[in-house]
Formats: sequence, structure tokens, C-alpha cells
Amino acid sequence: MAVAGGKVAWVAADWGTTQLRLWLMAPDGRVLDERRAGCGMATMQPDGYEPALLGLLADVLPAEGALTVVCCGMAGSRQGWAEAPYAAVPCPPPSSDRATRVATADKRLRVCLLPGIRQDDPPDVMRGEETQIAGVLAAFPGFDGIVCLPGTHTKWAHVSAGEVVSFRTFMTGELFALLRDGSVLRHAVQGHGWDDAAFDAAVSDALSRPAAIAAELFAIRAAALLRDLRPEAARARLSGLLIGIELAAARPYWLGQEVRIVGEAGIAGAYRQALAAQGVAAPILPADEMTRAGLLAAYANLGETAE
Amino acid sequence: MAVAGGKVAWVAADWGTTQLRLWLMAPDGRVLDERRAGCGMATMQPDGYEPALLGLLADVLPAEGALTVVCCGMAGSRQGWAEAPYAAVPCPPPSSDRATRVATADKRLRVCLLPGIRQDDPPDVMRGEETQIAGVLAAFPGFDGIVCLPGTHTKWAHVSAGEVVSFRTFMTGELFALLRDGSVLRHAVQGHGWDDAAFDAAVSDALSRPAAIAAELFAIRAAALLRDLRPEAARARLSGLLIGIELAAARPYWLGQEVRIVGEAGIAGAYRQALAAQGVAAPILPADEMTRAGLLAAYANLGETAE
Repeated sequence: MAVAGGKVAWVAADWGTTQLRLWLMAPDGRVLDERRAGCGMATMQPDGYEPALLGLLADVLPAEGALTVVCCGMAGSRQGWAEAPYAAVPCPPPSSDRATRVATADKRLRVCLLPGIRQDDPPDVMRGEETQIAGVLAAFPGFDGIVCLPGTHTKWAHVSAGEVVSFRTFMTGELFALLRDGSVLRHAVQGHGWDDAAFDAAVSDALSRPAAIAAELFAIRAAALLRDLRPEAARARLSGLLIGIELAAARPYWLGQEVRIVGEAGIAGAYRQALAAQGVAAPILPADEMTRAGLLAAYANLGETAE
Repeated sequence: MAVAGGKVAWVAADWGTTQLRLWLMAPDGRVLDERRAGCGMATMQPDGYEPALLGLLADVLPAEGALTVVCCGMAGSRQGWAEAPYAAVPCPPPSSDRATRVATADKRLRVCLLPGIRQDDPPDVMRGEETQIAGVLAAFPGFDGIVCLPGTHTKWAHVSAGEVVSFRTFMTGELFALLRDGSVLRHAVQGHGWDDAAFDAAVSDALSRPAAIAAELFAIRAAALLRDLRPEAARARLSGLLIGIELAAARPYWLGQEVRIVGEAGIAGAYRQALAAQGVAAPILPADEMTRAGLLAAYANLGETAE
């Protein structure tokens, strides 16, 4: 039940649509080891979750008693391991007292799945991001403002008095990937470079004329044909247009508000840059740190409520 | 050189990205036969075009002389059979006097590729639709107004005094297909039914708040999860949102204008319905008839200029 760095007290798990990330945690909150696998919810049957976990944790399972795994993300969805029903806004990010305990065949595991959050009007859901918001609240007790969580489905959440008051999801990241990889734009945007000025101009264009998005997208292809638009400028423009229309619609979330961005460096940096151009200084909090902080808060609460 | 219905005088060809359509034409303009193949520009090398054409026309090639094939579409692009360089707006739809003659190894073919049209600011291109616009002008001499050509890349063209004055392309059809088939919405929209009321509401929502598109798209999934939104309503809403933001941006093209829609029944009907809700009565002209009419005009012009 120990690894090189010390005794494994519990396991923090982020089990999403495409991958599983595990952090082996010391009693004092240090990360002893990190493990990843590609066994996301999208490719799993319910009876596949326990073997996947046992395989990754074989060397740290206890000789007696059970190893606690606190898990957020899509594993708790109806199509996942077991359903952890949504909490409804306004609510605090759901902790372990609202979690679903999974019955495992191997009694050396004690798994608890954290619920997501739902909003009925406008209809919206999150699973995983609520735990990052719990992490923000653990790191900054009393935080009152907006948490922006960029990703495949970017979330903007209004947090006040320890609760998620409302939120809205934008398909920006998924649109970017679909257009980059599968559309007529794929030749124009291929490669890996980046053009900051093209990104800034696109954010501004989309904010001032958001409806034109479908025409502005095709114009990227036309500009590649007619003006030899460089791929790094085309790719940055594609990103800027999509983030720009998102900012246009999310304006009530960021205008005059305290904003924190929770995300990975690349995409979080793009949002910070776009917000900075609107006069909003939004610090970035690393996504995996916030996930672990949220899972730790749930683990601590589990100890209080169940033992 | 004849088929069941009579002598083949020439061949009208629409050679696009994904397929080739041929119409065997009688001297009096009747269609004697129609032939299709899946050999679109996207899957062809330059040396594959002539064999493909010979294969489809083997039974009607003349014993002496050459069979004229007038061709519009992507076969005339830089990545196609041979480049037919764009004409620049403002210009009449390019006819055979601006076409590219292809040198064929088999002298029983005489192939002419019609050019597309370019616009430098905002950058935009069309290839194939200009021939449909030529067909509209042939069918309605002196037409002055807007031609809307719905499809993968929907075009809105301002036509006046026999010329295309300006145009704008929207990636609406491609966005619809990407989201329907490849996104998180694919489960919510699967099947084939349709809900007119959901379409109308979505057009209206998108017109009044176009920037919210990326959030409204995700809300389709959330409504399927939380409200059991039916697939036919989800699919109609997806279409309505995308057509709605297009109409919001294309407003200068349709507000107070004479509009003709050139398209296939399903998609053209959706645009007609969306425009009707804005008070614009736009008749539909069948796409393939307009293509043939445009190719016939080019063929007639070819006779005048080259023989």
C-alpha cells in the first residue's frame, strides 16, 4: 500500500470521457504518483471500470481494509460506471455526502463517485468541472465571482456564498476540433504555429459582429486560396473567432466581474489573452491542481461523514 | 452517338467535390439520359478525369469528330483536372469564352471547364454556383435581386444588370453535418423526423441572439438529458439555429430584396420557411435545372464563339 514516496492514504480520480487520471495521495496531501489510462467513459461498459481501476492500483491495494478512491467526471454519468445524480443549482459543488458509493466485487476498493450539477433553465449540465470549482473554493475560501473553465465544452460559472448560482456551457472547443480536423478549413489551418495578432483581430471581429461567424469561417479558406493566408494565422483566427463569439454571449459573466480561469496552459492562455483585450485581468489556476483540491475536500468530508 | 431517346448533341457536366453528374443532351435541349458517378474532385488525381469520362460516355462517343462536354464545378479548380482561373466580381457568370479547354488523349472528347468566381474583399470564392446563377439569368432574363444557394457552403449572391455584384459564403451546411455526425449532439439528433415548430423557434432564437450559438448548441444536449427533448425536435433545432445565425448575418442580402432560392427540395424548403417567417417570400428554383440551364447557355455561347 506504499510507493517510493510513502504510504498511499487514498486515491484521487478524474474519470472523463476519454481518459482516466489517478493521483496516489499521501496522508498529508502530497501527490506520491500519477497514473493515466485511455479507458474513458466513451469506450467503457459498466463492468469494465472495476478491472481498469484494479489494474492501475494493483501494487498499492491494502492487505486488509479498503483503499478509498474519490472520483469525479463522466464515470458518474448514466452511461458510466454508476449514476451519481446531478445536484441542481443553486448548490455548493457536491461533496462526498451526495456521492454514489459503488459496490465493488473486490473489497479492497472503496469507490465514491461525485455528482455533477444541473441547471433547468436554460438547460445545462456539468460533470467534473464542479469538482474544479470546489477546488477553487478550497484554495480561495469565500471566493465570489466567475470561474471560467475552458475546454471541449467551456463552462462559465457564477459562484457566490460557496454555491454555484448559475452556469452556461459553450461548445467552443469541440467546434474548434471539428473544424480543424474535419472541415474544408483543415488544409488552411494545419500545423502547430500560432499568430497572436491574428488571434486578437479575430476575437475583436467576432465580438463586434458575432452573427457573421459562418461566413468568417469560410473566409479563412477563401483567404488561404486568394491571399496565401499562413496556417499559423489561419489557425489562430479560427480559435479567435470561436472564442470571440463565446465572449460576446458570455458578456454578463465577465463584464465588471472577478474572473478566474481554470484550465491547461495553452487554452487557458488564449482565454486570458482574449479577456485581457476586453480589460479583464483573469488569473489562471492550473486545472489538475484544482481537480485534486476539489477531490481532497470531498475526501476530507468523507472522513467526517462516514467514519 | 445516340441513346434510346435520340441523338446526343453534347454533354452537360457538374463535376463537384464528391460526385460527377452528366446529362446527355439532345439538339433541342431535352435531357436524353442522366449518369452519375462517385468520382468527385476530392478523390481524383488529374490523370483520372479523362478515363472516368470515357467510361461513362463509351456508348455515345462519335465515330468521327468530337463530343463536347461543358463542365462546371471543382473539376476546374487548382486541385482538379485543370485550372479554370476565377473571374473576379463584379462580372457576369463566366461562360465558355472564359473556359479552359482541356487537352484530352482521346480526340473524341472536347472538354471545356467553366471558371468559378472570386471576390477579394471580403475574400470569397465559388465554383459551380456561378453556373446555377447563369441558369437563373437564362430562365429569368433581366433578373435583379438576390440568389440564395443553400448547401454545404451556402452562397448569397447579389445579381444586377446580368452580373454577380458581390456574394458571401456561409459554412452552415458543413457545420450542420459536422455537429450531427461527429459531435456530442449526435445522440440527441439521430434519426430522420422533423419538427417544424422547433425549427421556427430556433430560427427566431438565433436571429434575436446570434452570439449565443455555441451555448444554444450545447443546450440541445442538455435538454435531451434533462427534458427528454425528442430527436426530431433536436435535429430541427440544430438546423434552425445554424440557419438563423446565417440569416442574421445575411440580412443585407434579403431584407427588402427579391430573393430566389436555388437548391434541392429539403434544404431549400428550410431556407424558404425561415425567410417566410421574416416576411420574405422566396420561390425555389430546382438546383439541377438551373445547373443545366447555365451549362446550356455556355454551350450555346461556345457554338457562337468557336465554330
